[in-house]
Amino acid sequence: MQESEIQARAAAALALIRERRPLVHQITNFVVMNDTANITLHVGASPVMAHAREEVVDMVSLAGALVLNPGTLEPDWVEAMLLAGKRAGELGIPIVLDPVGAGATPYRTETNLRLLDELNISVVRGNSGEIGALSGAGGEVIGVDSVEGVEDPAAVTRAAALNWDTVVAITGERDMISNGETTVAVDNGHRGLTVLTGTGCMATTMIAAFAAVEEDYLVASACGLACFGLVAELAARGAGGPGSFKAGLFDALYNLTPERLEAGARIEVIT
Amino acid sequence: MQESEIQARAAAALALIRERRPLVHQITNFVVMNDTANITLHVGASPVMAHAREEVVDMVSLAGALVLNPGTLEPDWVEAMLLAGKRAGELGIPIVLDPVGAGATPYRTETNLRLLDELNISVVRGNSGEIGALSGAGGEVIGVDSVEGVEDPAAVTRAAALNWDTVVAITGERDMISNGETTVAVDNGHRGLTVLTGTGCMATTMIAAFAAVEEDYLVASACGLACFGLVAELAARGAGGPGSFKAGLFDALYNLTPERLEAGARIEVIT
Amino acid sequence: MQESEIQARAAAALALIRERRPLVHQITNFVVMNDTANITLHVGASPVMAHAREEVVDMVSLAGALVLNPGTLEPDWVEAMLLAGKRAGELGIPIVLDPVGAGATPYRTETNLRLLDELNISVVRGNSGEIGALSGAGGEVIGVDSVEGVEDPAAVTRAAALNWDTVVAITGERDMISNGETTVAVDNGHRGLTVLTGTGCMATTMIAAFAAVEEDYLVASACGLACFGLVAELAARGAGGPGSFKAGLFDALYNLTPERLEAGARIEVIT
Repeated sequence: MQESEIQARAAAALALIRERRPLVHQITNFVVMNDTANITLHVGASPVMAHAREEVVDMVSLAGALVLNPGTLEPDWVEAMLLAGKRAGELGIPIVLDPVGAGATPYRTETNLRLLDELNISVVRGNSGEIGALSGAGGEVIGVDSVEGVEDPAAVTRAAALNWDTVVAITGERDMISNGETTVAVDNGHRGLTVLTGTGCMATTMIAAFAAVEEDYLVASACGLACFGLVAELAARGAGGPGSFKAGLFDALYNLTPERLEAGARIEVIT
Repeated sequence: MQESEIQARAAAALALIRERRPLVHQITNFVVMNDTANITLHVGASPVMAHAREEVVDMVSLAGALVLNPGTLEPDWVEAMLLAGKRAGELGIPIVLDPVGAGATPYRTETNLRLLDELNISVVRGNSGEIGALSGAGGEVIGVDSVEGVEDPAAVTRAAALNWDTVVAITGERDMISNGETTVAVDNGHRGLTVLTGTGCMATTMIAAFAAVEEDYLVASACGLACFGLVAELAARGAGGPGSFKAGLFDALYNLTPERLEAGARIEVIT
Repeated sequence: MQESEIQARAAAALALIRERRPLVHQITNFVVMNDTANITLHVGASPVMAHAREEVVDMVSLAGALVLNPGTLEPDWVEAMLLAGKRAGELGIPIVLDPVGAGATPYRTETNLRLLDELNISVVRGNSGEIGALSGAGGEVIGVDSVEGVEDPAAVTRAAALNWDTVVAITGERDMISNGETTVAVDNGHRGLTVLTGTGCMATTMIAAFAAVEEDYLVASACGLACFGLVAELAARGAGGPGSFKAGLFDALYNLTPERLEAGARIEVIT
């Protein structure tokens, strides 16, 4: 696979999202729900948040992708994630897992490992500490921040992908994405993302929106992360701090054209 | 009733809201709580979010209006809505129901019908798909978006109002509001509202704030929707996308004068 | 203690927060989670929201401070607050309580009194009505707004601090903070804070961030409130309303230097 091919597929996928408006069902944390709903809308898809066991199976059946984000987890929500995830698996709907804070407490680590074990997860996106903690490759998480990343993100991403039989994305200054065979790096992004809450969760939602229209989840992940990183670069230009950066991020995403994405995506195929 | 009378009552109601600062008790969804609390404050009223069965009866007793918005519903919250709603009914406090996503899953549809059946709802505000699904008039909802509206919104609004013995508002490019006898259209609004999450919920909260000071709930609904649509028009002027539009929406609402509302409200009495 | 000493310690504490990035564990309400997470990040600390009984004890053990904010309380969350608070007490981690809406309903009042009784609370920050209602000094709360404050905030603050053996802060046009012996006033602030939701909760989070690095909780409270009030003053300069004020508040906090804080903090030692 060539860089130029992924760039072209990013543009095609963005156009498809806006044409089809896939439903992205998100069982996610209280902190970011408003932001990830807006990200979903601005990229062109349709968000729904629903977590009751009474309806998650029905809701996910309508969806183009399912986000599982146990960032403010509790037992009832984990049960709902398992119900929705099993149904998504039966229907071939991609599931994107965001293991927020995995490694910080045993409950978070065990819950995320359980989701990985019981569900057919398509993509796991986390920071270096979270993926390191979950995969046993090192990394340290305090709260929801990675305070010590893994030493070789490309190798850890690849190994975790092979181990979990899924696509794994470690986001950071350089995003690393692997399906176990092919590993891709994305260099879009801006440090403004590190001082705004929920940007990791937003990145996960972007991957889900792309996975709803692009069947190769490695490509979908790279495209979603390149798209998100690019709008962060654009937003940073006029920002005076994280408050104005956030408004600019939403504006830039809404205004991004497929052509601009194709030209601006900075992707490198590593192996 | 004349258009000019409703415009004048909109201005009077906005002034009254700011004078009395009525409490608007909202049992609402996790996605929009921050936004609807801000809308409540910026129009001049006082928001409170409280959902525990241990306190909703006490809290609603202090309120000028109650919002029921089962957008991220679960059984405990529905019980709380019923408790608060029954008390509001006893005290003559207006209840505004926002049936978010009705029609998307059986649980949502049944819950909203139960609220309509067991409570004395004053106003129901939804999109065309939601009201269509609830009233059996057609319309299709996927997630929380109406993907297919009803054919004749004025007729559906009127029929639903008669059937449920309440005021019904269908919002869209042209808002339609009816109490079964009189039907009013509101033409204020801007398409920026369609790509920002929670704008329907914000519109519902606006209706509740107006219903706290205007006893004719048909008039209150028309005034609240005209007010919200007008500030969207004002916000759109300086917006570069949905992020800056949202900040502008809050600024414009806070700065709106009764005189500006009276002059800018575009209301038509249909029947 | 001199004003100039507190100003210098404010600057030193802000620098320390950014150096150490303490974890601020927040068991807080649904309305403000996103905003207080951002405030935590922008001042330089690290936020985590976690409320499950399965993990709060583990999470708080990693924290530099714990925020308890029962603004959308329910029994499970109160139990989690007690579990986390007891562990924080054992470890000497400061606990900052925000009794949102205390006085509005019996459940809110009783819950906050229970937290004060069973935990070793370091700081209580509320508005005049909340502290008045909790301490029996008068004051009236409707919803989450103080509609009638106490007559002599300095005296009430001091008496409540003595009674609860903690630091008490009443925020308003003039913030009053006391540990029962020393009472300090902070005059920073802007009326824009009164028409934006969650600003009281943000102030509480600021106190917690400062308490994570400054062991004298009276000083930490005064510094946190001066810092928050100062950024409100800075944000108000370019704001056209509450929407742009909010973005400006986040920008100003992120850009605030220790030197600017030292120069701008308006603190008076009363007794």
